[in-house]
Amino acid sequence: MRALRLVSPGKIEIQDVPIPEIAPDEVLVRVGGAGLCHSDLHVLHAPEFPVLTLGHETSGWVASLGADVTGFAEGDPVLVYLVWACGRCRPCVEGRDNVCVNQGGRLGMPPCPGLGPDGGMAEFIKVKARYLEPLGALDVASAAPLADAGLTPMHAINGARHRLTPGATAVVVGVGGLGHMGLQILAATTGVRIIAVDSSEQKLDLAREHGAHETLLSDGGTAEAILAGTSGYGADAVFDFVGIQPTVDLATKVIAPDGALRFVGLGGGSFPYAADSLTTPLPWGVDVRRSYGGTRADQRQVLDLARLGAISVETKTYSLDDGVQAFTDLEAGQVPGRAVIVP
Amino acid sequence: MRALRLVSPGKIEIQDVPIPEIAPDEVLVRVGGAGLCHSDLHVLHAPEFPVLTLGHETSGWVASLGADVTGFAEGDPVLVYLVWACGRCRPCVEGRDNVCVNQGGRLGMPPCPGLGPDGGMAEFIKVKARYLEPLGALDVASAAPLADAGLTPMHAINGARHRLTPGATAVVVGVGGLGHMGLQILAATTGVRIIAVDSSEQKLDLAREHGAHETLLSDGGTAEAILAGTSGYGADAVFDFVGIQPTVDLATKVIAPDGALRFVGLGGGSFPYAADSLTTPLPWGVDVRRSYGGTRADQRQVLDLARLGAISVETKTYSLDDGVQAFTDLEAGQVPGRAVIVP
Amino acid sequence: MRALRLVSPGKIEIQDVPIPEIAPDEVLVRVGGAGLCHSDLHVLHAPEFPVLTLGHETSGWVASLGADVTGFAEGDPVLVYLVWACGRCRPCVEGRDNVCVNQGGRLGMPPCPGLGPDGGMAEFIKVKARYLEPLGALDVASAAPLADAGLTPMHAINGARHRLTPGATAVVVGVGGLGHMGLQILAATTGVRIIAVDSSEQKLDLAREHGAHETLLSDGGTAEAILAGTSGYGADAVFDFVGIQPTVDLATKVIAPDGALRFVGLGGGSFPYAADSLTTPLPWGVDVRRSYGGTRADQRQVLDLARLGAISVETKTYSLDDGVQAFTDLEAGQVPGRAVIVP
Amino acid sequence: MRALRLVSPGKIEIQDVPIPEIAPDEVLVRVGGAGLCHSDLHVLHAPEFPVLTLGHETSGWVASLGADVTGFAEGDPVLVYLVWACGRCRPCVEGRDNVCVNQGGRLGMPPCPGLGPDGGMAEFIKVKARYLEPLGALDVASAAPLADAGLTPMHAINGARHRLTPGATAVVVGVGGLGHMGLQILAATTGVRIIAVDSSEQKLDLAREHGAHETLLSDGGTAEAILAGTSGYGADAVFDFVGIQPTVDLATKVIAPDGALRFVGLGGGSFPYAADSLTTPLPWGVDVRRSYGGTRADQRQVLDLARLGAISVETKTYSLDDGVQAFTDLEAGQVPGRAVIVP
Repeated sequence: MRALRLVSPGKIEIQDVPIPEIAPDEVLVRVGGAGLCHSDLHVLHAPEFPVLTLGHETSGWVASLGADVTGFAEGDPVLVYLVWACGRCRPCVEGRDNVCVNQGGRLGMPPCPGLGPDGGMAEFIKVKARYLEPLGALDVASAAPLADAGLTPMHAINGARHRLTPGATAVVVGVGGLGHMGLQILAATTGVRIIAVDSSEQKLDLAREHGAHETLLSDGGTAEAILAGTSGYGADAVFDFVGIQPTVDLATKVIAPDGALRFVGLGGGSFPYAADSLTTPLPWGVDVRRSYGGTRADQRQVLDLARLGAISVETKTYSLDDGVQAFTDLEAGQVPGRAVIVP
Repeated sequence: MRALRLVSPGKIEIQDVPIPEIAPDEVLVRVGGAGLCHSDLHVLHAPEFPVLTLGHETSGWVASLGADVTGFAEGDPVLVYLVWACGRCRPCVEGRDNVCVNQGGRLGMPPCPGLGPDGGMAEFIKVKARYLEPLGALDVASAAPLADAGLTPMHAINGARHRLTPGATAVVVGVGGLGHMGLQILAATTGVRIIAVDSSEQKLDLAREHGAHETLLSDGGTAEAILAGTSGYGADAVFDFVGIQPTVDLATKVIAPDGALRFVGLGGGSFPYAADSLTTPLPWGVDVRRSYGGTRADQRQVLDLARLGAISVETKTYSLDDGVQAFTDLEAGQVPGRAVIVP
Repeated sequence: MRALRLVSPGKIEIQDVPIPEIAPDEVLVRVGGAGLCHSDLHVLHAPEFPVLTLGHETSGWVASLGADVTGFAEGDPVLVYLVWACGRCRPCVEGRDNVCVNQGGRLGMPPCPGLGPDGGMAEFIKVKARYLEPLGALDVASAAPLADAGLTPMHAINGARHRLTPGATAVVVGVGGLGHMGLQILAATTGVRIIAVDSSEQKLDLAREHGAHETLLSDGGTAEAILAGTSGYGADAVFDFVGIQPTVDLATKVIAPDGALRFVGLGGGSFPYAADSLTTPLPWGVDVRRSYGGTRADQRQVLDLARLGAISVETKTYSLDDGVQAFTDLEAGQVPGRAVIVP
Repeated sequence: MRALRLVSPGKIEIQDVPIPEIAPDEVLVRVGGAGLCHSDLHVLHAPEFPVLTLGHETSGWVASLGADVTGFAEGDPVLVYLVWACGRCRPCVEGRDNVCVNQGGRLGMPPCPGLGPDGGMAEFIKVKARYLEPLGALDVASAAPLADAGLTPMHAINGARHRLTPGATAVVVGVGGLGHMGLQILAATTGVRIIAVDSSEQKLDLAREHGAHETLLSDGGTAEAILAGTSGYGADAVFDFVGIQPTVDLATKVIAPDGALRFVGLGGGSFPYAADSLTTPLPWGVDVRRSYGGTRADQRQVLDLARLGAISVETKTYSLDDGVQAFTDLEAGQVPGRAVIVP
């Protein structure tokens, strides 16, 4: 079968590889959609990374089943859940499988297809049956990004709900692949006032369509505008879906006391965190958290919201043969919403 | 009356000042105890600070009442609640008065006696009736530190209870004034395994008496020992009651994924917080929070625990005339538990 | 001034009474709107009740201020918060003022205007300043019902949020005064699937406009329809805004295991609750709760949602002189949404 | 092997049965302890029940492993987790496997060994590997009751933690098998004041040893005593581990507004629950919940608390041959703590 493979740092190409053989507890999935994520660009340019098939947002149909698999039939539409956790450790039984002790450890994460095991940018992918989610009536190709662009914002938002009560203000920084999903999840599941920030007017238009109450073009005056709109107190929650230095600076300048400050984008920005409040001007009580991936329950919630019609992914589709072009477009900032490779 | 006053940066002295006159909604309190806190040393050495009577941990007896005050009688034993918030703003009505919009704003805190208004290191202090807590049968002098050394750890711990479930491990760094209270609160209100860390064997003895399951003398191997005792995964919660560079470094090295990392001590340590996880080796999902003061409900809980006999303050008492000596002893690390000035 | 007074069981009339005199901590409010509630009918027909001015949902403008009042000015538009609690007891400082120890006790509730003190169906009402909420730019007359028809559903819903996650199903029984607000609050603040049940097609139309995903005319097959739509497992949350025997029966038949079963309407229905599950067919883990009124924070959330445009009250207005007619219409089931008396 | 079997309503006997054969995902466990529960008496006297080996609290050692089992070795000490849920449905992935959709449905529960599949009162039991918990260094025989007498109270308490804050009062009704564990869990994991109620002075002695702050012999004045000790407001949480009519009556008389009222014992008591508060004198806001079993995370917490030495089971051991006698003793109220059959 054809597969889009990372062959060396910075280099991807379409290759012919064997169709994977499945173990008794695995399922072979014929890929229906494989989303392209900014973190794929990080992998592409990582100084060291094993050769592998990329793609950690994968949907498709069950093509064949291992001998021990129950609960699925050939042809069933499925989503590949991103977090391949052990299911037995303390965090796993508490429903926090994304911080699995056994598969991730302290500084790692459980294995994700396309970031270790072979991913979904291919005609087929093999997956343990227990990592599959039934898609039901959802459109298969456009559901693929729900596996990360849906999951990751949902997890970040679910971990901030104590601050997302009516009367609160939430700032969404960056209305790209993850940001436009995060914005929709906020609009669909909370009664907060949403301020969206982006450097593109086109993306702010998208933000308004998806439920932003206010939009701000990011420039030198963004922080002041947000503070002015919150009586100087700041926003109760800030979700930075970009993570570059200017957005990190913005986020720390506008978060309110006791606020939920969430970094989701992996843009490399940083700030000095001081144990006292004298050095860093971060208000008392802010909780700062970095979020990647999500739990199985988060994933289920994303799918249920999509089924209800409350959220949807803006997609631009590419054939598998045009997969390299998709990477080029993403890197150039040419993809509104999410690029999806449809083999 | 006599009062211990900050007269210029670095200089405190006992002075004679008039007994405060009270407004219709205020109460004059005859001071029974005034606790001495590390943050008093910060105030003492601050480059700029107004002249004032120090002391933000104050207990005593109602001496006289303003015309509009109800619910108190002369002689009632009381604690002066630390956080003088507005009671009307959104955080206040949510029970988060320590981040009051009107009295604190974004980077400040509501006024605290002894850190703005005159404090309790004097024969009398005036307080609005609504900031008084009845002490009931608690010993008045030794209850004074509950106003901060009790309140602040309780708030930090209450904000981390989602990680303080049975099976979890909590690390208490620093068994001084706040730390020895935090340790007792953890022991009294959770079923977590408690590891106490300090540089003093004497304080580790105190920790064991107060409920620590394990104690570690802080040295080069502390982080490794904690990781070894948690299968390499780290501690679910770390409370740094010191906040100097070595303790901040320790805390970031041993916190588990999804863990609650709490900085309470104002020791000036810091670390670079990166939006991605590549630069800083902080596990995914850790929530980092800096805590100072607490809510009225936190204060009530502290008093109720003390009444139940579940927590108590180790105190060393000084007369008001020996107040300057108390500061000298605290600065020299000569005070086990908490110094309390008893006028 | 004119006032609509309960003069004896079953009898109300417009009377001339003196304008109330205010104490130093009180405000005289010129009434702009006074909502009419089903519980007013309970009061009207209670076998014993003191003579009083009815009306526990009141909005208006500040007419004059007591000497000690700060933070308000003449002409300010305000809402009268329903729950006149002490503000000092343990539940109060925890933000649960609706179960105030001192003002309500175990089986009572804190005093509510119109249900003890004189209410708002008059030209003026006097209120302690601390029970006023600024209305800002909200329309004064139509905001009145937010004081109960908004507050009470918000409290019931806020106490069930652990079950109102995406993927869950919530049933709203009764789309009247409280029900049509509860439905809007659910739609505005959660991503659950909402099923509305009523005996009136007209009210089901209203339900669909306000965000119900499905509507069911209540008849013999309602329970079966809800079970069929939830794979036989039942609904995660059921809010019974009616409380008569048929709705109580429906609610107990369709609630899911671990579900949140909330009784808000005071219709007199009941069921036998057995300590084991053998007698009553109520699933394991269901938590059953009866809700009346709400907290100050709940009230603030209602006002903030209304300001955001996310919820609004359907009102039918009556002059004060037509106040008796309003009661007749309400009793006859002739009022869609909420009747509001506008003096 | 020998097994204690229910052979017809009211009749149990020791029989010879074949050692179970295991499937590839199952483990054969050599039984080390099988706890005896009041619900076994319900099963014994049920009018209809299939013939089966009793015992739903089972510990032991791995005797042999199915071909696909990983993570266990022969000789490993294990506990058999009670709730055999699907692991895939929405409640399961949320960590609420005790209300599994697929295995329990709306009015049932997931299968439990000894209440459907053959239980642990035998020399061996077969169990799917994923329902086993490693015991580590815990004593095998006395750990058996942790599977229900530990699990069930933990679940009831975990679902009431919002009311179990310092300053709150909790009443434990019944200090038998479950009650004496519930009491210890409360003492070990909360800072609440605990009042224990029982009809036996001996059990009240046990209660005091295990952390009760006050004890009351149940008689006509118990409710008044509890109300008197809570300023008439009632207890924030009541756990009824008996569930007979007098204890249900007591519980409803002493629960505070907003309180957590939990029925755990299956004694057949009941009360009329009215949608309004006029008929039943139950305070506003009380949440009433019936609890049976618990989640996997609850089970893990129980084991971790036991490992920390914070809780322990009082046991009286019987040989398998004396198993029928154990039932007789339990029925006669002759067993302090928990009877455990040790084959």
